[in-house]
Amino acid sequence: MSKRICGVDVGGTKIEAVVLNDKHKVCGKARLATPTADGPASVINAIIEAIKAAADDAGCKTNELVGIGIGAPGAVDASAGILVRAPNIPGFDKPYPLAAAIKKGCGAPVFLGNDVSVAVLGERDLGAGAKLHNFVGIWWGTGVGSGIVLNRELWHGRGAAGELGHTVIQRGGLAEPSGMVGTMEAYAGRRNMETRARDAVAAGRETNLFTLMEQAGKERLSSRVWQEALEAGDPLASELIGEAVDAIATAAANVINILDLDAVILGGGLGSRFGQPMADRIAAAMQPTLFQPDKAPPVLVAALGDLGGAIGASLLVGRHL
Amino acid sequence: MSKRICGVDVGGTKIEAVVLNDKHKVCGKARLATPTADGPASVINAIIEAIKAAADDAGCKTNELVGIGIGAPGAVDASAGILVRAPNIPGFDKPYPLAAAIKKGCGAPVFLGNDVSVAVLGERDLGAGAKLHNFVGIWWGTGVGSGIVLNRELWHGRGAAGELGHTVIQRGGLAEPSGMVGTMEAYAGRRNMETRARDAVAAGRETNLFTLMEQAGKERLSSRVWQEALEAGDPLASELIGEAVDAIATAAANVINILDLDAVILGGGLGSRFGQPMADRIAAAMQPTLFQPDKAPPVLVAALGDLGGAIGASLLVGRHL
Repeated sequence: MSKRICGVDVGGTKIEAVVLNDKHKVCGKARLATPTADGPASVINAIIEAIKAAADDAGCKTNELVGIGIGAPGAVDASAGILVRAPNIPGFDKPYPLAAAIKKGCGAPVFLGNDVSVAVLGERDLGAGAKLHNFVGIWWGTGVGSGIVLNRELWHGRGAAGELGHTVIQRGGLAEPSGMVGTMEAYAGRRNMETRARDAVAAGRETNLFTLMEQAGKERLSSRVWQEALEAGDPLASELIGEAVDAIATAAANVINILDLDAVILGGGLGSRFGQPMADRIAAAMQPTLFQPDKAPPVLVAALGDLGGAIGASLLVGRHL
Repeated sequence: MSKRICGVDVGGTKIEAVVLNDKHKVCGKARLATPTADGPASVINAIIEAIKAAADDAGCKTNELVGIGIGAPGAVDASAGILVRAPNIPGFDKPYPLAAAIKKGCGAPVFLGNDVSVAVLGERDLGAGAKLHNFVGIWWGTGVGSGIVLNRELWHGRGAAGELGHTVIQRGGLAEPSGMVGTMEAYAGRRNMETRARDAVAAGRETNLFTLMEQAGKERLSSRVWQEALEAGDPLASELIGEAVDAIATAAANVINILDLDAVILGGGLGSRFGQPMADRIAAAMQPTLFQPDKAPPVLVAALGDLGGAIGASLLVGRHL
């Protein structure tokens, strides 16, 4: 049996684990809901369960894994294996030694990275960025994360680069829950879009968004619910997605004007679900903001799809061992 | 006599030439008004006259110069020595072989660069950026140019990077003459500020801006006129400068959120004239837009001052020979 490597994408709603062979082919996978009560211990247990299930699916045990890479949605101290802060996961509002806890439960080396960073590097190595020198990955989901790849390296700056979602495109505009005003994420983050939809309903607007949510057995407006509402021509959904597209496009064009990159890669829950038609729509919406509209870079869709976060996380193992 | 090197900053209103020794010390200088009629030939003659006068001031002839570096306000084909397009200089709306023309008139090798790029690289080598790895230079003048230095190299991207002035901070806001809407330069470029001031006067607003302009013997609102009006407490000048500060600060904070750089360096005609108090004001105005306001990078003033553009241009010679 070839060497087996595990990658885990820990999100605010689900934990996705994959086991790959040394050709990066997925040979086992598992998905669990992220526990929302009981704090870190139950999340750690769920991550270990997901890894065990994916290993089982691949026909191996966790202590036979060469290593486990984990992408987590927050600030990460990679060398110490510590999840510093993950606002989207209940109980992770202070530093937690995540790598050590998973290593103890699985008996294999564990490496930690930021979820968007590992997904963007996954696209660089195995996906839509494989032939690109310089690009920005825009991960459109609960929030809007991003990663800037320059000369094929992820740009960190002093450690906190890539916050394109928190750039201002509309001074005096919508506020994020954090208090930041007029940022791209205030318009485009799925959580903020849901807040706007609930406010609109409270103010008397009609929409089938929440009916579709209930039919899907969800408690939140998932990417699938947004897609279904959009396809059904729901006016409120169309309006909010339209505003999100314009916000993403403005911020994307701004970063192109600043860095003149080769391409934009669109990923994340919403980005992957909407796919190339949405990438084309964003490309069109970028035109008025581009300094050189006749040299617009292509807007590509993340090629690794739904499992991209977990596959990207698995690449942490090869980089460290 | 040590080796003498010449640098020329060709601007829309003036041509500034300096001659430096091999320790980068200025030993001769000259300034001429940029001819606004008669097309390229008269501008070329004025550049050659300025170089001759600066050489004379330094006690040498132009054919004794090791080389001449020229910073021009527009798109430059450096390897061919061609000024591709310089919208701010009458007659340079199509490609012109500037380097060859100056070489013929002066008898020394000539190297061409973009004015903001050479000024930013001057700060990197000899000025406020000498100890910085990563910074953005924001050159606040007729327009607002910028240069991004990453790992001590100017970032070009596909060739057109650094257009921070043309990033959008206010969708649906003020328009530039080019038609771009809501960009930083629409609010902060001196030319656009003057248009707004003239429109305000036409609409009945009072201001002493144009009285000060006439007293200074100018036909445009120069940096000095803006400074005098601001110091006299002119309400319209204060209002327009305030809006410019907010626009620059928003765009500067955006680029920090994207790249997490070590510092911002403020230069250009207005930036150099207003100096550190204005840099401090911009730093304060950046706070609400920074993703990590507690880790705000310093906002420094270009250290080479008024002659920075010409000194920066002189460094082209050493890089090429």
